[in-house]
Order: sequence, then structure tokens, then C-alpha cells
Amino acid sequence: MTIQVGIVGGTGYSGVELLRLLVRHPQVRLRTITSRKEAGTGVAEMFPSLRHFVDLKFEDPSAASLRECDVVFFATPNGVAMTEAKGLLQAGVRVIDLAADFRLRDVAAWEKWYRIPHAAPELAAEAVYGLPEMNRARIAKARLVANPGCYPTAMQLGFLPLLESATVDAGHLIADAKSGVSGAGRKAEMHTLFAEAADNFSAYGVAGHRHLPETLQGLQTCSQTPVGLVFVPHLTPMIRGIHATLYARITREADFQSLFVERYAREPFVDVLPPGTQPDTRSVRGSNTCRIAVHRPRDGDTLVILSVIDNLTKGAAGQAVQNMNIMFGFDESAALTDPALVP
Amino acid sequence: MTIQVGIVGGTGYSGVELLRLLVRHPQVRLRTITSRKEAGTGVAEMFPSLRHFVDLKFEDPSAASLRECDVVFFATPNGVAMTEAKGLLQAGVRVIDLAADFRLRDVAAWEKWYRIPHAAPELAAEAVYGLPEMNRARIAKARLVANPGCYPTAMQLGFLPLLESATVDAGHLIADAKSGVSGAGRKAEMHTLFAEAADNFSAYGVAGHRHLPETLQGLQTCSQTPVGLVFVPHLTPMIRGIHATLYARITREADFQSLFVERYAREPFVDVLPPGTQPDTRSVRGSNTCRIAVHRPRDGDTLVILSVIDNLTKGAAGQAVQNMNIMFGFDESAALTDPALVP
Amino acid sequence: MTIQVGIVGGTGYSGVELLRLLVRHPQVRLRTITSRKEAGTGVAEMFPSLRHFVDLKFEDPSAASLRECDVVFFATPNGVAMTEAKGLLQAGVRVIDLAADFRLRDVAAWEKWYRIPHAAPELAAEAVYGLPEMNRARIAKARLVANPGCYPTAMQLGFLPLLESATVDAGHLIADAKSGVSGAGRKAEMHTLFAEAADNFSAYGVAGHRHLPETLQGLQTCSQTPVGLVFVPHLTPMIRGIHATLYARITREADFQSLFVERYAREPFVDVLPPGTQPDTRSVRGSNTCRIAVHRPRDGDTLVILSVIDNLTKGAAGQAVQNMNIMFGFDESAALTDPALVP
Amino acid sequence: MTIQVGIVGGTGYSGVELLRLLVRHPQVRLRTITSRKEAGTGVAEMFPSLRHFVDLKFEDPSAASLRECDVVFFATPNGVAMTEAKGLLQAGVRVIDLAADFRLRDVAAWEKWYRIPHAAPELAAEAVYGLPEMNRARIAKARLVANPGCYPTAMQLGFLPLLESATVDAGHLIADAKSGVSGAGRKAEMHTLFAEAADNFSAYGVAGHRHLPETLQGLQTCSQTPVGLVFVPHLTPMIRGIHATLYARITREADFQSLFVERYAREPFVDVLPPGTQPDTRSVRGSNTCRIAVHRPRDGDTLVILSVIDNLTKGAAGQAVQNMNIMFGFDESAALTDPALVP
Repeated sequence: MTIQVGIVGGTGYSGVELLRLLVRHPQVRLRTITSRKEAGTGVAEMFPSLRHFVDLKFEDPSAASLRECDVVFFATPNGVAMTEAKGLLQAGVRVIDLAADFRLRDVAAWEKWYRIPHAAPELAAEAVYGLPEMNRARIAKARLVANPGCYPTAMQLGFLPLLESATVDAGHLIADAKSGVSGAGRKAEMHTLFAEAADNFSAYGVAGHRHLPETLQGLQTCSQTPVGLVFVPHLTPMIRGIHATLYARITREADFQSLFVERYAREPFVDVLPPGTQPDTRSVRGSNTCRIAVHRPRDGDTLVILSVIDNLTKGAAGQAVQNMNIMFGFDESAALTDPALVP
Repeated sequence: MTIQVGIVGGTGYSGVELLRLLVRHPQVRLRTITSRKEAGTGVAEMFPSLRHFVDLKFEDPSAASLRECDVVFFATPNGVAMTEAKGLLQAGVRVIDLAADFRLRDVAAWEKWYRIPHAAPELAAEAVYGLPEMNRARIAKARLVANPGCYPTAMQLGFLPLLESATVDAGHLIADAKSGVSGAGRKAEMHTLFAEAADNFSAYGVAGHRHLPETLQGLQTCSQTPVGLVFVPHLTPMIRGIHATLYARITREADFQSLFVERYAREPFVDVLPPGTQPDTRSVRGSNTCRIAVHRPRDGDTLVILSVIDNLTKGAAGQAVQNMNIMFGFDESAALTDPALVP
Repeated sequence: MTIQVGIVGGTGYSGVELLRLLVRHPQVRLRTITSRKEAGTGVAEMFPSLRHFVDLKFEDPSAASLRECDVVFFATPNGVAMTEAKGLLQAGVRVIDLAADFRLRDVAAWEKWYRIPHAAPELAAEAVYGLPEMNRARIAKARLVANPGCYPTAMQLGFLPLLESATVDAGHLIADAKSGVSGAGRKAEMHTLFAEAADNFSAYGVAGHRHLPETLQGLQTCSQTPVGLVFVPHLTPMIRGIHATLYARITREADFQSLFVERYAREPFVDVLPPGTQPDTRSVRGSNTCRIAVHRPRDGDTLVILSVIDNLTKGAAGQAVQNMNIMFGFDESAALTDPALVP
Repeated sequence: MTIQVGIVGGTGYSGVELLRLLVRHPQVRLRTITSRKEAGTGVAEMFPSLRHFVDLKFEDPSAASLRECDVVFFATPNGVAMTEAKGLLQAGVRVIDLAADFRLRDVAAWEKWYRIPHAAPELAAEAVYGLPEMNRARIAKARLVANPGCYPTAMQLGFLPLLESATVDAGHLIADAKSGVSGAGRKAEMHTLFAEAADNFSAYGVAGHRHLPETLQGLQTCSQTPVGLVFVPHLTPMIRGIHATLYARITREADFQSLFVERYAREPFVDVLPPGTQPDTRSVRGSNTCRIAVHRPRDGDTLVILSVIDNLTKGAAGQAVQNMNIMFGFDESAALTDPALVP
């Protein structure tokens, strides 16, 4: 079985990463890719790394044969998918949104954090949050999947076993997270210029970041008690990668290493490291794996969980392909089996 | 008044940073710089950036006129100063050790963390811990100064006002700290190679890092209750800079911004930023300033303090020069007044 | 003697570098700095590295007291100085333009390369090209100085002794030059984003770059025969620095090392390295020095000259300050005496 | 058909890159990998990116079943393969050496450049130089392949069409080449530390580099006139990638773009770009492609050829796998079909 795939908005980093992965998917035929601004430009002109892999040109969305696809990925800015998904769903096309439009079930909260009226509240209610380690069965049956954010993926996978087992103080979690610069997207902005971001490190959005309500929503579903989270994101001078350093106060003793190993034993894309080790972000560069290490410094009452992903792969396009694989009954790892690029 | 200055072990990053600062100090004459391994090599041959600034050659320690100096800096690996300081002190030379030999008053603890017998416990007892913001008066009278470590400087300056004011839970502090790669020193090692450390991020030493007991010792002197600290250092792909993200649970309400502003109002090298801002490490690149921002995300019960320094300047050589200035009654800022190099 | 200094357009990299240098110039009082877009913003709000060094706010150019300055620097995009310099000159203010407006004496060529009609051809004729190693005497008397481009500075200083001595084939020079990303300016553009420029290397502008006619004009004045130059610029993933690798075919034997040493013996900012060595760009990071090494591989007929500068210092703001020092009879090195920041 | 593959010396960057490629080769079974120093360590312990891909431990070379392999790769320092290849060849094992031992046919020249007596001159005479674009037919029949160096691959592919067509002055070629730091290998050395190599750029080995005789040998076989080459390598702050900027004086007019397009029309791993474009090194990151652009600046008499490869892939392990594919009659692109990792 081969499916027809469309991509809306393929000129950003999630878009080019989707292309990199999909060109080697044995059951995918890439049918159309749209960009209002770049209509007519060859995909491989813009991304020469795709020469001889992708022969398509970007098409204007209006002209594109999106409704003839089996699945359409939105790799667009927030606010696009919510206006366009409905028509596609009605035409029987399944939709995976890599932006935030359908990630929050609480539409009022969404509108507060994203500062736009939501155009499709009923779809926000229907959408399945696409974190397979949490929602695999529901994803398999979904018409519409809200692909998780990069930080929320790293944070939820790191906290999940602790909240499910009710072994830590859920009300006082801390997530100190560091992201590579590609997380800011392929946009001409000052603060992500090389000469600004290189050889430099800083926190940002300490007062509040949009990935906070998304993460809280996910964590709350795993926890029997109210979840509180202090989340401090940082910009670090690397291209790809997220490193989340998570802190939780122990409230009930357990063998925490085993807790994690068992929770993720059957997960193809979560790798719990041996005790005493610390994951490099480069060990997942270009791969769909989340690597996790469990620490309890000096046998104290605070756990330190280290969780790393590639923000463009498991944190965006790779997870979207994983969701597609689940939705269409393919091997969940199809097109996602390569080792990371090291060094 | 001009003083004669000697440097023992000037081939590492602290050494070359000391040279960069001292060559423009109006009251300093650099008399000798030693290196067992590089004896006979011109300093400017090894560091061409110092051509026409430093005409000295590295001398063998045995041949060097260290005892004729007014002050000698040790920019050596741990364990050197403790065997050599005594003779210099007896000859009336003041000593500033940039390594860890005299940082811990508890010699047994030192021996446990550094895995060497201590050669001069009586000097460890005498040495003044050279954090001017804590110990200025004692530094002024000291013969022997233990220059603080880089992480401990950033962490202590960030936690100090909170502990002195007893407004947070001192027993459960968290320090998530990120260091540029020069912090590992100028040593041929695998994990700090460009092709290993670039485009990569990881934690290390989660089980225990030597800067933990040093920081605890300092924090304990400011706190009326026992201090507990979880400290997770990370390696970040930049040359210089430390960013400490500090977390503390509030136990007593206060105007935390004012607390910091007032505590550091007369400190020439601590700059408390306006509310709502986040310091870049590059804003202190090559400068002796520590910049601090105070945050209380979403008005919760957890404070987030952001503290940045240049690990080689305020975290090593710059603070050593500041200490020298205090010891000799010079303007405390002499040779330390340049703005950071941005971009 | 203290002079009043104004800066037009201080929000780019040349502007912030000018500020970094001027704040420690003993004979300079910074009077005004303008930015149409940022009028009202504190300089140190935009560049926190300048907190406690610069208290000025950006002023609207119309409101600024530029005519009361002794000298005004234009750190603006091309095309601004040519419309505004005239009024200042008439008011007796000296002008140093860091952009390209007055660099080419051939106004027709300028209009072809820069694609704007020139607003002040008579000033282009009057302006002195501010390369002190070539034009020191004329700079001393100039009202209007055209500060050289970054690539042209590195290339001209490398080729000069060869052309003056007529020892190479002037018609077939090759300059393979590499620039750090700050050379592209502080502009929100896609190709200089961190995620585009990091871990990447490419040539650009091979068909023709605006620094070619400027360099040819300068080289031609030193050569008795027509100069031909192939110039290939490259973008390299570092913040500051230019490395020009220059190739010239020998037509007349000479002691080339001595030729360079003697030519630059009295130049405070050109440092000819010993034979057999190769300059690092970091050895001039933040300094106004140009370091040059002379090679003749395998005793063949081709010379290889390596010439490095910091593109923002000797390649822009540092050279502008050097020119100001010459124009006002100050010590030529005032505010330019610090060693490079290494590492 | 599945072949048994061994790797000698798998702890360096060529080794880990070989592993990354071979684990997804459908006809390869990785049988043994040796390291004297790391014998007993799990491959995936050292390279966590290979967890769940490689279950082998490093074996001591003496214990390893190398003679039972169909092919053995040497990813060792220079001087190892020449002592061990003979026994393997006699046992019927084919050998691909990624080091330099068998690259030069002139053994005396080899000994001069590499400063070791050659242990197997007869094998140096037998070995086929493994540049498929030059020697495909001979590689197919070879027992012993000398895999080319990284710089020589980029330079030869760039100059080849010009020398074969005798359209340029072969006696005066210039190659200005820039390499990422992984080219220096995974060795604890000072000059490739992050804090030395980052934010820095320099030439090295201008007096003579071992890749010069190798490149000259290859180019000479394509040229009817004696070849002269000035080769200047540079270290650039990126992990992977080589960018060779090649200069040649035209002696006979031709349509140079077509010359390149036709020469490489049937080559799976050489991609000639459209006129007017410039290749990024990142466009080949992790891929086996060499991208080439042909320029003639300002219609002058000098051609500029831009040639980029990934030094670890087409410049080392990827080319070795390509050679293996040719030797065993596999699809030449097997395991080499992934697009580059961008960004």
C-alpha cells in the first residue's frame, strides 16, 4: 500500500525535515507541497540537499491537489491549520498539524496564550494529541492529530513515569530546558542570527512560554494530583537538539531506574540509558529517539531526569511521521530507523 | 606604586587571561612567568595575541625570581600551590591561588573530593576565600587568597541575597549551571575536542562535582539554616561563559528585585538587571561583571535567579586581579574596566 | 583636548564596536548617537554589555546635535552618508563614513556596483580613503574620510608590499577570502541565521562583490602595471574575523619576508609574523591589528600571503578610530591598545 | 548475498562513520570490530548513537576473526594496514584501507612524506586507488583498495574534467581548501580543542601537506602535461565538510559548465550545480555526494571551481562503502542513499 502525501508550508525547518524523512519512506508518494510565497520554486532549488530526491515545485495552496491526498501535514505557522483542516477532513483526508492549533483542549486557554481567536473549536476537541507513548491507540483511529511541541515532548517523556507512579511531588516540578536555535524556526529574525546566538547562552520566556500549558495538560492526564511546573527555556548555540533537565522531589520511594526501564520497555523511540550516564544531544541528532537518564544526586530527595531529543525529529517531523505510520498501520519505525549523525 | 608580579603555570586559559588583563594594569610590572614544560619558549610564541605586549619567556620554576615578586599567582593544576606557597609566604610574597588548593576549610573534605593528601593544612586554615562580595575586608589583609571556582562564583552571587535574608528554603536549592568549554582547561582531552563538543549539549558530573562542597561552604556562611543544594553542571558549545539558573522555594515574602538591587548597590562587578530581562553570557564576555536577573514565574512560590559570568574573568583571572587590587589598595577596578566584547 | 563625537546609526555591529572602543578613549566625549528606528531606546537597553558605560539614548537624527560635534561617524547602510555629510562638513564637522559612499573615486563605477545614483559626487572626489598604511598624511588633513571595507583592508595590506616592489604579476592576483558572519551586518536575514550559517561553509558572490572595485582602486595606486584580481569571498561559521589567503606569481626575485617586515616596520597595527607561521583570526579578535605571514610553498613561483584582521575592528570601527586619532593629532593607538580576546 | 565485514580500529571518526553506514546496508553483516585499547568495551557504550544498532564489543585484533571476513576495512592510523594487510589478502580477504598506506605508488616519496619505512612496497604497487570516478573498473577487480584522502577527493573531482580536456594551465593550479575539524581525527590534541578551534580560522601546513603528493599523482594520470599545484589547507570551525576552492588559468576555450556536466553525467555521487550557484558544505553533510559549481568570474581567464564533500563520508567512510559495493557487485549506492542532514 502506498499513500499520497501532501505538505502545506514546506519551507521551514519542520518542512525540510519532513521531506528528508518522507523521501525514503517505502509506502509514501509525495504528491504536493505548498508555499504561498515560493510557489513555482523548485523544492531542491531552495534545499539543494534534496536535489535528485525531490522533483516537485512548491505549489500555491489554492492550486494544490491536497484533497486527493491520504494525509496532509501542516508545517505552517500557528493559525493556518485551524482554518484549512476542516475542508480536508470533510474530503476524507487525514491531517497531522505540526503547529500548535489543536494541541490544547481548553480553547479559551489557547486563545489567551496564542492571542488569536480559534477558528475551529470543535476540531480542537476532536484532535488527538500525538504523543504515541501516551496516546498510541487513539492516534491509530484519529482523523486529526495535533503533533506535540518540541519542549513538551522532551519534558513529558521525562516526567511521565514519575507522575504515573505517583512517586514525586507533582505540584512542584522544575524543567530547565535548553534548545538548539533551529527551534526558533526558519524566520529572518535578529536574535537568532549567527552573530547573536553563537558563543552565547541565555534564558528566555521565563515569565511564560506557550509550551507550558501544553505540557501541563499532558502531565495532568497522568497525575492523580494537581501538577505545578516551573519551566525555564534557554537558547543554546547548536543547530538541533533539546536537553531537558528535570527536577522532582521524591514523595514515595521506588527503584526509579527500573520504573523508567519498564515504562519504556516496548517503546521503539525511548531509550533509557544505564545508571550513571548522561545523554548527549548529538546522540539523537537526526534520529527519532528520546534518550533518558535517571539520577538521584548524593542519594538525596531530589530526582534529576535528563531527557534529550532532536527538536526537528522526535520534537517535530519525525514524531509526525511516527504518527502517520500509526494512523495507516505501517511499521511504526518506517523511515525512522537511521542512527544519529555523529560526529 | 608599582608591584612586581609573578605567575606560576602560565600556559593554560587562566594564565593567558591573567596576562591579557595584567599587561594593561598601570601598577603592575610582570616580572616572571613559569612553565616547567615550556621553559625557554616565548610567551608570545605560544600566544601570538600577546605579541608586542609580553616579551618574557616562560622560565623554569626553579630558576624564576618568584621570591622577589610582591605577589605570585598560581594558575596551575590542583595540588601545585599547596606545596609551593609556603616558601613564598615566608619570603614575604603574597599568593593568590586560582586552583582549588585552599578553597575548602575542611581539609578532610578536600582530600576526599580531590583525592590527594593536602600538603599544607595550616595554609588552608589561613587562606581567605577570595569572593570580594563576601569577604572584601579579609581579602584586604590576606597573605594568601583562595580564588573561587567559576561555577561557585556564579552560584554564590546568585543565592547570597536570598540566604542572607532567610527568605527561601535553604535546604532545597537547585542550581542548573551551563559552562563554556574553556572551563575544562587547556588540556588535550577527547571530550572537549571541537568535533565532540560543538553542536552538542550534555550534563556531566551529576553524581557529584568538586564545586559543590566549595559552594555549600560559602552559602552556609550566609545562611542561618543548613544549606542543601542539587547542582547539575552542563557543557555548552561556547568558548567562554557560565549561565547559572538557580531555583529556590520562597518561605518568606519580600520584594526580591529590591533585595538584590540593594545587596549589590555598591558592588562594582555585580549588575542586577531590570525586572523582566534575561542576561546573555556574551554581555560579560571578557569582562569581570556578574549580571543577575530575578524572576518569579507566574507569581508562584519558586524564584528563578539567572546569574552569568565569564568563567575566565570573574570566574578566574579577573577575580584574581580584583583580589590583587584589594590586597594592594589599588582601585578595585584597575585593569578591569573594559566593556564585554559584543558581538 | 577632548572632542565631541557623534554617531549616526549606532544599532549595527560597526556601531556597537565603535561604542566599545570610544568609551575608553581618554579624549572623546560621546555626545549623541542616532537611530531613526530606535529613537528613545537606551543604548544600554539594546546592548546590555554597555550598561554603566553608555548612558545615552538613541536620538532621532533630526533632533540630534550632530552639528555641534567635532567629528561624526556614519555607521549606516550605504547611501545615507552621501546625503547627510555635506551639511555637517559645511558646519565644520569632520566626517568618517564606515559605509561605502565615498570609497570609489569613479562615481560611475560606484553607481554601477551599488545601484543607487550618487548624491554627492564632489564629496566622493574630495574624500580621503582611510587606509592609514597607504594614506596617513592625507588622512591627517582630511575633512571627510572614507573608511575602507573589511575585505579590502585585509587584501590591500597583504598585496601592497608586492605591488610597490613590482615583484609579482599584478595582472593575475588571486584573493581567497573568508569572513565571519558579523561581516553581513546586524540585519534580520535568512542566510545568516545561526541554523543556516553554523556548521556550514560556502563561497558567495563569486560573480562579483562590491569590495572588488574598491580593492582594485587601492592596489592600482601602488602598482605601475594594470592590476587584475580574482576575488572569492566565503562565509565561515565564526562571529568575527577575516582571513585572506592571497596568491601571486613571482616575476622578480626578492627576499619577500624582509620586504614585508621593512614595509610595515613603523606601522603600529600591522604585525608581520616570523617565517613558517600561520596567523589565527582569533589572535586579532577585538584588536586593531592586521597579522600577516609570507609563504613560498616548496620554493615555487607562487607566493602565498596570509592576512588576518577582525572585520569589526581593523576592518571597520577600529580603523575608523585610528583615522580619527590621525585627524585630530591624538596618539594613533589611543583606545586601540588592548590585546585580542583569546581564547 | 550477504558478506561478512570486519573493521580494524573502529574508535575514530572514520570508524564510527563506517558503522553508521554499514548498519543499514542490506547485504552486510558486521562480524568484528577491533581496537587494541578498547577491547572489551561495547561499541555502543563508546558511541551511544549506535545503541540498538551495534551489539558488538571491540575485540583485540589478535582475537578477532578477521580472516573469516569477506572484506576488512582499516580505519587505523597510517602504518597499520601495511603490516597487516598481507596476511588477510593471503587468506582471501579483500582489504580497503582508509589510511594512507597504499595511496602512493612511489614508495620512496611515501616514506619521505610519512616518515616511516614502508612495510609492503609490493602491495603499494598492487593497490588500486579507490576514486571510483577515475578507477571504477579496476576497483571492481581489486583485492586491495587504497581509499583516497578527504582533500584529494574534493580536489581531484574538481580538477579532473579540466585536466582531461587539457583546457587549463596544468602547471599552475591552485587549491585553497577548508576542512571541518573532524578531519584531524578523534585524537586528544590541543589545537583541535573546542576552545582553540571555535570562532577561529587559520591556514596550516602551507609549507607542505601529505595530501599534496597524493593529489598530484592522481591529477598527473589525467593530464598530458606536468601538473603543478599550490595547495593551502585551512581549519574552519565546523564539524564535517570540506570546501575546495580551485583556481586554474584557461589555456583553451570551452563550455566549461557542459564539460563538467557531461563528465559526471553518469556518476551517482557527483552533482554538478547549475551556473551561478555556490554549494554549501551542509548540503552534503552525512551524504556521499560531491557537489561542484563552475565559475568564470567576470569572464576573465581564470576558472574558479567550488567542490564540496563531507570529509567523513565521500572523503572517507562513504567512499569506502562505495568501493566495497563496486568490489562485490552490489548496487553502488547501497547504504548511501540518504539525503544530507539539513539544517
